[in-house]
Parts: sequence; structure tokens; C-alpha cells
Amino acid sequence: MSPELILTLFDRVGVFVFAISGGIVAVRKDMDLFGVIVLAFLPAIGGGTLRDLILDQPVFWLSDTPTLLLAIAGGLTAFVCHRWLENFRPLRWADAFGLSLFAVTGAAKAMSLEHGLAVVLIMGALTASAGGLMRDVVANEEPLLLKKDIYATAALLGAGVYFALATYGLPETTAFAGGLAAAFTLRALAIVFKLSLPKSPF
Amino acid sequence: MSPELILTLFDRVGVFVFAISGGIVAVRKDMDLFGVIVLAFLPAIGGGTLRDLILDQPVFWLSDTPTLLLAIAGGLTAFVCHRWLENFRPLRWADAFGLSLFAVTGAAKAMSLEHGLAVVLIMGALTASAGGLMRDVVANEEPLLLKKDIYATAALLGAGVYFALATYGLPETTAFAGGLAAAFTLRALAIVFKLSLPKSPF
Amino acid sequence: MSPELILTLFDRVGVFVFAISGGIVAVRKDMDLFGVIVLAFLPAIGGGTLRDLILDQPVFWLSDTPTLLLAIAGGLTAFVCHRWLENFRPLRWADAFGLSLFAVTGAAKAMSLEHGLAVVLIMGALTASAGGLMRDVVANEEPLLLKKDIYATAALLGAGVYFALATYGLPETTAFAGGLAAAFTLRALAIVFKLSLPKSPF
Repeated sequence: MSPELILTLFDRVGVFVFAISGGIVAVRKDMDLFGVIVLAFLPAIGGGTLRDLILDQPVFWLSDTPTLLLAIAGGLTAFVCHRWLENFRPLRWADAFGLSLFAVTGAAKAMSLEHGLAVVLIMGALTASAGGLMRDVVANEEPLLLKKDIYATAALLGAGVYFALATYGLPETTAFAGGLAAAFTLRALAIVFKLSLPKSPF
Repeated sequence: MSPELILTLFDRVGVFVFAISGGIVAVRKDMDLFGVIVLAFLPAIGGGTLRDLILDQPVFWLSDTPTLLLAIAGGLTAFVCHRWLENFRPLRWADAFGLSLFAVTGAAKAMSLEHGLAVVLIMGALTASAGGLMRDVVANEEPLLLKKDIYATAALLGAGVYFALATYGLPETTAFAGGLAAAFTLRALAIVFKLSLPKSPF
Repeated sequence: MSPELILTLFDRVGVFVFAISGGIVAVRKDMDLFGVIVLAFLPAIGGGTLRDLILDQPVFWLSDTPTLLLAIAGGLTAFVCHRWLENFRPLRWADAFGLSLFAVTGAAKAMSLEHGLAVVLIMGALTASAGGLMRDVVANEEPLLLKKDIYATAALLGAGVYFALATYGLPETTAFAGGLAAAFTLRALAIVFKLSLPKSPF
């Protein structure tokens, strides 16, 4: 398989898993089928949509029907299998993978438009985590992303590593793989060792 | 009256009624006059704003002052008459009409930009119901739209019927009327028979 | 100092103070360091971002790294000094100043694009207060902005005075100073005399 094909495949998995995360929240909040689909869409395409609007790029899913279908499929999967999925451990790892991938694709898009480090970091974190935040806000849930765990911080790290490697002239594929590995490693450590960012001790 | 004039008139009614729905929520949540106006704006122009941003079109109300004035008028009407309006049955039917109309105008805008079925459906539902969702999120209310009733689903149906009729080469006016009738019929059935979408039975 | 330099300096102060307001809410809601930074960003750059998206202008902070750094600095300041800052009275006045300044810069941007009074007023209020609203919505707090006090109304007044003065042909600097003074005066009166907008008495 070509690198592009692998990347597309990974991206599809990320969208599907993020959509499931939204669908599960919707079922837990007693939403109906339409609500489940809406909440599946938010994490799956919300972050990328915001990224594209701010960067003044065509919103990616306008010409990417498979992503929309996968978001719906993720919602339907959660609608049917939510009980089983909530305790399904591999889902967490797929989510960590989606987070890392979205962070690096967001950073790469910003960098291809010649933005500097600050914007690249923001776009990495935004692509990976703004959709999850929208999901929690619309569902009227506590935004855990802002409260505990190391989640968006892993996206920031991945975006930063990608930026550094690409700036130092490494090939795109290497920078991409490096950013992906950095984000995933930090997220994996956070899951395994239950790491959290500090809260204000004052 | 020409078809365009009728359409404009209908659109004005839709904006006004949607604005009232926002104003009523605001008064119920004990908001002040400014809050009432803001919550009137959200359902009246929120969905169309999001649609235009995502489709990369000029945001419609930038050059449509009457819509802005009508949104304010709807808010003020709710501010003064909310007690009377909350149990005013015709309001529900005007809302159903606004929903249907916004769904078809949203779908028509997406289709005029040569988007496919998936995007047309999303834009129909978004134009008709995203503003109502924003209203509930900002007011910190349960998003009923995602929980019960058949509301956005009627918008999806209307957008779909419009798409089908226009694709099969029927004149614009026929496709428009067909989509409008389909959405309104489904919404009316939902109101009369208290229909709801299923929730996850698992 | 040239007028531009003064304006830039004032703008920086506004961003910093708005960011602190977000950071304080985040610490109060028990958020971690990442959450504090996100909630600092929302009031500091959220309103201007929405304004630029709707006006179809390049989002201002994409080419304004100092603003991003100041937003982070404001968040960190709140993270460390929140206890001391919550009762720090000058902060309120700096916030009133930021509100007034953002209102007039938002109005000026809309007017430079040849929009009429309605859009100019909306852009003034949006730039000054939409970010604070986003902060409250994401933090799942009561949106006080919509409930009491005279806050966004001061922004509307400032934008309106700027529009009137500029329309009557006064020099840009005079119109700007007039709008700023009007917004700040109303906000100051509201703080000192605890003024509020009316709620629906019906």
C-alpha cells in the first residue's frame, strides 16, 4: 500500500471511532436517533470544520462523502452497541490513535499554508479536540477534556514535533510519523499511568 | 403576487416566528432585554449563518437588514407577550412552516453550488435546526431537538424530496413546493400524533 | 507615541485582561492547565474570530502572534494569581476598557467594509462580548452577560456613536475616541450604580 492509502485508511478509522464516542454520549444522555447522529458528527468532523473555517480553506467534508457516511455509521454503531462499546478497551486506543492523527493532519494543513509555530500548534489541538469539546457542550456534559487527563496536550506535542521535524528539513513522511508517534506515546502514557495536567494549586 | 414575493414573505414569517421561540426561552430563563434579543437572533439567523460559513458564501444577513429587524421584532414580541404566546397554538404551526421553508432554502442553496445529496441533506437540516440548537445550548437548556419529537428529521425529508425532484429535472418551483409540503406534512403528523424517533433500545 | 502605537498598546491590554477573565472562570470550575489556557483564549480572541469569519476577513490572530502569547500569558496569570485577582478592583476597569475598545474596533472593521448601521452594531457587540459568552457556555456557567448588568449594551452604544460620528464626516480618530468614551462611560455608570437592563415585567 502507498503511504497515501495508509493515511486515508487511518483517517477513516479515526473518523469512525470519534463518531462512536459522540454516539455513546448521546445514548447516555437519552437522545433519540437524530440526536445520536448529530453527536456522532460533532467529534468526527467538528474540529476539522472549525480548522478549515479559520484557515479560510474549503471545509474538507464538502467533497468527502465517505467521511460523512463513516460518521453516520459510527453513530449507528453506538446506537446499537453502546453497552458493549463503553467497556471495550480497544476503543480507547483507537481514539488515542485518531487524536494523534488528527493533530498531525491539522498541523500539516496549517504548515502547508506557511503559518508559524503558534498557529500550527493551535490547529493541531483544534483539529484533534475541538469536536470532542463541541460534543460535550451540546450534550450539556462536563467538558472532561478541560478538566483532567492528558488529551489535547498530546495533540499539542504531536503538532510541535511535526513542526520541528518539518522545519529542520526532514521529509514530510518522517515528520508526519514523528509527530504521530510523539502524540500517541504521550496519550498512551497518560492512559496507562493515569497522568493528568496540574490544576492551580494556589 | 410573483412566486419570489411569496417566498420572501414566507421567509420573513419564518424568521419572525423563530425569533419569538428564542425570545420565549430567554424570558423563561430570566434573561434581560439584551439576552432576549440575543436568543431571538440565534434561531432566526444562526442556522443560515453556519450554512453560509461552511458553504463559503456571503453570510446572508450582511445584506438583509429586514431579517435583522424582524429578529429584533420577534424578540421584543416575546419580551412583551411571552405569557400569551407560550400557549398560542398557531405559533407551533408557524414554526413548523418556518422549519420546512428553511430546510428547502438551505437545500436549494447547497444544490445551486452543485453539492451532492449528503451535503444537501446536511444543509437542509442545518439551516432549519442548528439555530434552535444554539438557542438551547446558550440558554443552558436541554436540547429537546436531539431528544424527542420529529423536528430536524422533517427538515431532512424536505431537503431530500427537493433534491430528488430537482435531480429528476422538475422545475425549481415544483421541487421547492414538493420539499416544503413533505417537510410540513411530516412535522404536522409529528405534532398531531405526538410522534417521536426511536431511542436506543439496547 | 503615534495614535496607532497607543491603539496597539490598548488592544494588548484588552486581550490580556479578557484572557484573565477566562482563566479565572476555568480555575473556579476546577479545570486543569490546558482548560485554563482554552478558557483564556475564548474571551480574548473568540469574539474577533467570529467577527472575521462572518465578515469574510482573514482571522486576525493568524498573523498576530503577540495576541496569542498574551492570551496564554493571561491564562497563566489567572492560573497562578486567581485568588488575588478575583477581588482585584482595577481588573474590572481594565475589562470595561477592553469591552469599549473591542466594540469600537469591531464596528470600525465592519464600517471599513461599507456595512450599514445594523451590521456595524452587531459587529461591535459581537467583537466585545461573544467571546465572553463562549467562555460561559463552554464552562457550563450561567451566561451572566445575558441576564444582568449593562455590558454588551455598552458595546452597542460605543459602536453606534462611532458609526454616527464617522457618518457625519468626523475624522477617524475623533469617531474612535467618541465611541470608546461612550461605551466606557455607560459601562462605568453600570458598575458604579449597579445598573441593569429591564427584564420582562409581564
